[in-house]
Formats: sequence, structure tokens, C-alpha cells
Amino acid sequence: MRKYDVVIVGGGPAGVSAALSAKNSYPSKNVALIRKDMKPMIPCGIPYILFSLNGVDENILPDVPLTTNKIEIINGEAVDRKDHTLILSDGEEIQYEKLVLATGSVAMLPKIEGNNKEGVYLVHKEREYLERFRTAVHNAKKIVIVGGGYIGVEVADELVKAKKNTTLVEMMPQLLPTMDQEFGDKVKEILIGQGGTIITGKKINKILGETSVDGVELDDSSKIECDLVIISVGYKPNLELVKKIGIPYQEGKGVPVDDYLRTSEKDVFAIGDCAVKYDFFTGDLSNIMLASTAMAEGRLVGSNLYSIRVVRQYQGVLGTFSTKIGKTAFAVSGLTERRAKEKGLEYTVGISKAVDRHPGKLQGVSEVYVKLIFSTYSHTLLGAQIYGGDSVGELINMVSVMILNRMTDTDINTLQIGTHPLLTPSPIAYPVINATINAIVKWFK
Amino acid sequence: MRKYDVVIVGGGPAGVSAALSAKNSYPSKNVALIRKDMKPMIPCGIPYILFSLNGVDENILPDVPLTTNKIEIINGEAVDRKDHTLILSDGEEIQYEKLVLATGSVAMLPKIEGNNKEGVYLVHKEREYLERFRTAVHNAKKIVIVGGGYIGVEVADELVKAKKNTTLVEMMPQLLPTMDQEFGDKVKEILIGQGGTIITGKKINKILGETSVDGVELDDSSKIECDLVIISVGYKPNLELVKKIGIPYQEGKGVPVDDYLRTSEKDVFAIGDCAVKYDFFTGDLSNIMLASTAMAEGRLVGSNLYSIRVVRQYQGVLGTFSTKIGKTAFAVSGLTERRAKEKGLEYTVGISKAVDRHPGKLQGVSEVYVKLIFSTYSHTLLGAQIYGGDSVGELINMVSVMILNRMTDTDINTLQIGTHPLLTPSPIAYPVINATINAIVKWFK
Repeated sequence: MRKYDVVIVGGGPAGVSAALSAKNSYPSKNVALIRKDMKPMIPCGIPYILFSLNGVDENILPDVPLTTNKIEIINGEAVDRKDHTLILSDGEEIQYEKLVLATGSVAMLPKIEGNNKEGVYLVHKEREYLERFRTAVHNAKKIVIVGGGYIGVEVADELVKAKKNTTLVEMMPQLLPTMDQEFGDKVKEILIGQGGTIITGKKINKILGETSVDGVELDDSSKIECDLVIISVGYKPNLELVKKIGIPYQEGKGVPVDDYLRTSEKDVFAIGDCAVKYDFFTGDLSNIMLASTAMAEGRLVGSNLYSIRVVRQYQGVLGTFSTKIGKTAFAVSGLTERRAKEKGLEYTVGISKAVDRHPGKLQGVSEVYVKLIFSTYSHTLLGAQIYGGDSVGELINMVSVMILNRMTDTDINTLQIGTHPLLTPSPIAYPVINATINAIVKWFK
Repeated sequence: MRKYDVVIVGGGPAGVSAALSAKNSYPSKNVALIRKDMKPMIPCGIPYILFSLNGVDENILPDVPLTTNKIEIINGEAVDRKDHTLILSDGEEIQYEKLVLATGSVAMLPKIEGNNKEGVYLVHKEREYLERFRTAVHNAKKIVIVGGGYIGVEVADELVKAKKNTTLVEMMPQLLPTMDQEFGDKVKEILIGQGGTIITGKKINKILGETSVDGVELDDSSKIECDLVIISVGYKPNLELVKKIGIPYQEGKGVPVDDYLRTSEKDVFAIGDCAVKYDFFTGDLSNIMLASTAMAEGRLVGSNLYSIRVVRQYQGVLGTFSTKIGKTAFAVSGLTERRAKEKGLEYTVGISKAVDRHPGKLQGVSEVYVKLIFSTYSHTLLGAQIYGGDSVGELINMVSVMILNRMTDTDINTLQIGTHPLLTPSPIAYPVINATINAIVKWFK
């Protein structure tokens, strides 16, 4: 039996960040991380193994941060527990003082007739599965993707770049249903421009074929021929281990935790996709699973394993997310217009568009479009959606910081924002400021 | 005589932003902008007319924002005043109710023997001067740049890209003296790598030649041959008009204003480079002249011309700035380590380095290096310096927002930061977070 002070289960980003933060916060404690996959994937890099990367092995989460910080890596699967001792599938026993569960999430398989045929793939996260998936994609000619959320559109983007005959089917009326319509439409336009076929507002009825896939049938009875189906309709918390070791959980939602990621059992914490989340604005249960949240939890949990040293500043999921489709980056943080409406928040929209270099005659210019949602009465920023060039990846983080600090239109309008011809929009056209002014002008009227 | 409610003097970014904000805030008022140059330059684009742009006319600040907002443009030079009426050089009289001075700054000519020879250029902002400057640079073979601040290194970068024989001389021991040593050294390395010659820690004694330049002599008596000298040692407030019209000013510092940009005279405001500035951290007089500050002032002044509607949130110059040298972006906001030391602020440094895409096998990866300065006792973020890929232009703005909100190490460490393989560093390596953790680890020890 091996003994550790802190044991983390799960080798994904949440687990790694918890391990690092535990070791940073309590250097004298010994910390171990148990993981099923010897070579865990970078989760958000998975779509890119299909084309942009030269193989699955280019997407391995490096061990260096763990090994340089003297965190013990245990390759194995925890399957049971006795008191403060985990039991691995090979019988080995691992004793802990503090246990952090970071078991992540698993891809959902929707109830579609024929979903078990050969040639149907989910976007799982295991390296060996992904090797087979990649080979199947490379051998396929016509591919149907089911689901037009983030993963679905990222996979579609890879496939059209690889010149595969690609059809994406989304049952909602737009792609990226967690962003507003105009952003989904922009993604659609880009994917079609690269040769993809996009069908929105329709469901898949059946997956066709004898033993292996030869097509799909939609809910309007039309058929699409294909030799591969990729299903990407979301993920659910991986609760396999918590069920075995008797930690309370909510089916489909995860392990309930307090603000410090403590489960109902003393000495056991849960973080990331496997822990219950709440919405930043409404306190509702949230099913958003993002590295941005998981990492923040991982960093917090490690500091507070033995006592609350670091008081939590931000609670609730903001849902900060970015991606790139074709040559255009898309990003969202906080409330969209649709969700503000659904949740009954009175809001004012500010919009601005600019080019992201100045003067616009410089090379490498992209258009950047910013949509901000403000609270009409309290004037705080509630949400932002952006598309544009690669800098959008950091621009959305700036806006997240604004939302988390409850900044108002005035705060933002009087900000000192740095700009440079070769790096950003012009100071006069800076779109986060100008979208704010666009909202302010509505108030002044 | 023409009559306007609001008259702005100055057609640069500060003046334009003031005009727009006046019109947005008081739509029924008529607003006029008086400017000397019919075709004003984008100030921060000026270095790029030398090589990256195909001529001076590609760097004109567009009139569209003014004309679409029905702001009257008056091309002329204000030279005198009677009561509330400005008099232009052609005798025309322009009456105002509120006057905003945004006359900007002028390049300083240091007292160097021979500074009036043919072939000596300053980085002025006037279009016609810049036409001549550009032609002279294109015809020159060997060029010496005096001054290694932002403009100096940007000009040097353009010249080495244009394959000119370029020598830059900076009297301080490093380039970019407003950043810490390692950043100046990195700029030096890049410029040398592109074929430039960099001399630091030496002054120019004389500019040599009969009537036109044929070299410079340094303070160690060594000589450098050249046929063009570009002097770039800073700017000072343009106080020509305020002297003529009797607004109080401080020589070399600008027009004193209160927190709402009001001068000592009712109905007269001053903003941008021509107004006195104070440091964000110490309240000292600041001689930093940046669009980031000027624009924030322009946006504020317009809202508050007739009464204080918008309470000022942020006072003092943060000095948020970004640039790009070679393929590397550099940026700074708030205090550097050197200034923290000079000003007696007790500080802790956090440093982190990462690649700005993940996995690192993806194309277009740059290294990004972040240095943060925290207050040791109060744990607030005081400053950031960064180099890396183009996204640094927005990353520094995120950090500025953090500093302005007086965020602490804990606030930053528990942030939800969005990351994406094609757009940002990995969530585990995200350098603004990891530099924060680097400082935190010092506190935990």
C-alpha cells in the first residue's frame, strides 16, 4: 500500500491544475495523481488530431509540469475504496489524507436508431479510441456530423479543410446554439464557404446501413449517404467512480460541492466536469463544461485542502469560451441576448464592428465584431460575444475580467486601452469601447 | 462668424474622440472640430509609412466617424481669441460655448551640435513633412537613429526590414527604457538579428558634415558614417495656442486640468498630450503621452461638457502600451520593476513563459513571456510587461483591466480564463495566471 497526503483522481486539465496547486500551496505534502490514460489528451485539442495535427500523439498533455513539481503519477483505474484508501483495478491500494475527484465527463450517445452500427463514432477523449477514430475519418469519403455545438463545428472545420465531403446536422435553428443567431450564421457561412453542407432545424431519425453505416435519415424523411457518422451532442459528468465509492451525486449533474469544492464527505473534493456547477448570473444549475471553469476550480481547491486560505472571489460559471472556424475566431463570455431574454434580465445591447489593425491598409487585417449585453438599469456588463481575428482569444478574456468585476458602461468607457497599428483596432474604432458607447447612446437618448 | 455649441481644437485621436463623445452625449448640440492638417495622420501609424505602408496617404485618420456623426470639420489654424470666439489665421471667427483643447504634442529637438544640418529629421506628425521624410529615407543608404524609445525602435524595425544600413544609438544602458532590462535586451536581439546595429549607453556628441549630414560623433569620440539622422528623443506638449489665448500652462508639462479635464477657465477643457497628467500609482506628474490616456480623456470630456454626468472611475496614467518589433509584440501596463523600486513600492515579481498555442505542435506558435509586479503586502497587481505573438496587443488590455480594478493575486488565480488550441496558451500554462502563481508560491513559502 502506498500512502500520500493528497491524491487526485483524473489526469485532465482540472486534475493537473489541482495537483500543481496542492503542491504549490503545501510544498511539504506528497501529492499523487491517478489517471486511467497513460497518455491523456489535451481535451480541447481533440478535434485537431483529425487534420491540423499529424496524429493523436501530437495532442498529449505533457507530464513535465507534474514531474518537475515532484507529483507522483500513478497510471491506473480507481475502482473502490475502504475508508481513506482507494483500490485500483489491479488490486493496488492508495491511501490518502485528502482526495480530489476530477474524473471529467463522457460523450453522450443519443437514442437514435442504428447508433451502434460500425462507422458511428463519438468524440471520446481516450487516446486509443481516437487513434481508431482518426484512421476511420481518413478512410471515409462522406461524413455526417450530428450536432452543431462547439465540438461539432470544430470537427466540421477540420473535415472540410481535409477536403472530406462533410454534412453537419443540427436540430436547433442555428449552429452554436450557446451563442446568438448572428454568430451561428457566420459559422455556417464559413463552413459552407469551405465546401461543407449545413442542415439546421432538423433531427436525425435513423442511422442507415446493414452492419455498417451507409447513410442517415432526417426527420423530414430525406436521406444523406455517408460512410461515417460522428455524433457530438454533448457530454455528461463521469460519475462511475463516485457511484462505486459512495459519494453523493445528482444523476447527469455531478457531485454537489460547496463554494470551496468540498463534497458532503470531509476530506473529499470534486472539481471540473464531474462537479455540479451554478450559473454566474442566476445561480441556476449549469451544464456548461469548460476548461475555463475547471481550471479555476483546480487552482482554488489545491490552496484550500487543509484550511480555507484563499477566499473565493468568483462563484458560478461565466462560460468563457473561444474557438476558431476557418480563419475566424469566435468567443463568448457571460450572457447572450437569448439567455438574458429567457432568464428575464432587462438588457441593452451594444454593437460595434472594426478592422483589427490600423490603418486598414496594413497586411493581415480581419474584421472584428463585438456584441455586448448590459443590464439596462444597473448598467453592469452581463455578456459579450465576439468574432474576428486570432486576438479574439485574449479579447474575450479581457471582457471576462470586466464582467467578473461587475464593470459598468462608464467604467469601460473611461478605460485606458492600449492600441497599436500592427496589433489592434484603432483607438477610435476599438470595438469593446465602441460597443459600450453604442449602448450608452441609447441611454442618453 | 460661425457659431457652434462645442468647438474642439485638434484633429488627432484625442480631438476626434472628444468630438464623437460630445455629439453622442449631447445630440442636439452642434459640434465643430478645427484642425491644421486637412489630412491628419494616425499618430501611432507614422513609423509604418516608411516601409510597411505604400505611402503617407495610407496612414490618414479617416473623416468618416466625424462626417457620419454630423461633426463640422474646419480646416484651419486657431491663432487668437476674443471672449468666446476663436480667430483663425485667415481671419475667420469661430464662436463657441464650450472649447476643448486637444492640440497634442511636438517632437523635441535636443541640443546636439549640427542638429540643423540637411538630412536631420525628427518624427513630426504633419503629412507634408512626412512625405519629405519618407523620400529622404528611401534615398538614404546609411541611417543613424538617435533615441531607442518606442518610436526609435519602431523606426529602426522599419528600416532594417527595408534593408537600410541602420544604427540606433540610445544613451541609456538599454533600449525601451520605460520597460525592464530584459525586454529592452530582447528588442535589441531582434533588431540585431535583422541586421541592425545597436549602441546603448552612449550619447551623440555632434552631427557631422558640411551643410548636409555625413556622420555622427559619439561621446567616446567614435564616428559613424551616415547620410541621414533621425532624432527620436520624445515629445512635449504643444502649447502654442494656449500661450496665444492666455490659458494657464506649465512649460513642458501642459495645461493643468481637474479630474474632469476642466482648465482654470470655465468652458475651456484640455485633453490628451497637451494636458497635464498624473501617475496612476503615485500621483506624480507624468510625462507619458499615449493614445490610451488621450482617448479615455476624450471619451470622458464629451460626456461632461455641460455638467458632470459620468463620474470618473480611473484617474492617473497607467501607461498601457504595445508595439511590435520584428515578429514579436511587446507591451507594458502600470509599474515596471525599475519604477516600483525607484518609487519605493515594496513588490513581488511573478514570471511565466509559455507557447501561445496548444499543443505546441500547431502552426504559428510564438513564445509568450509575462512579468507581473504585485504589491507585497496588499497583494494587488501593480504592473505587467509582456512579449510574445500578436495577441499580446489584447492581453495587455486584459491586464490593464485587472490593474485598474485593483485585482489581487487571489482574484487573478481564481479567474475563469478561456483558452483554445488555435488561439491561446494551454489552460495549464496560461502565463498571466502562472506568473501570478509564481508570485503566490513566494508568499506561501
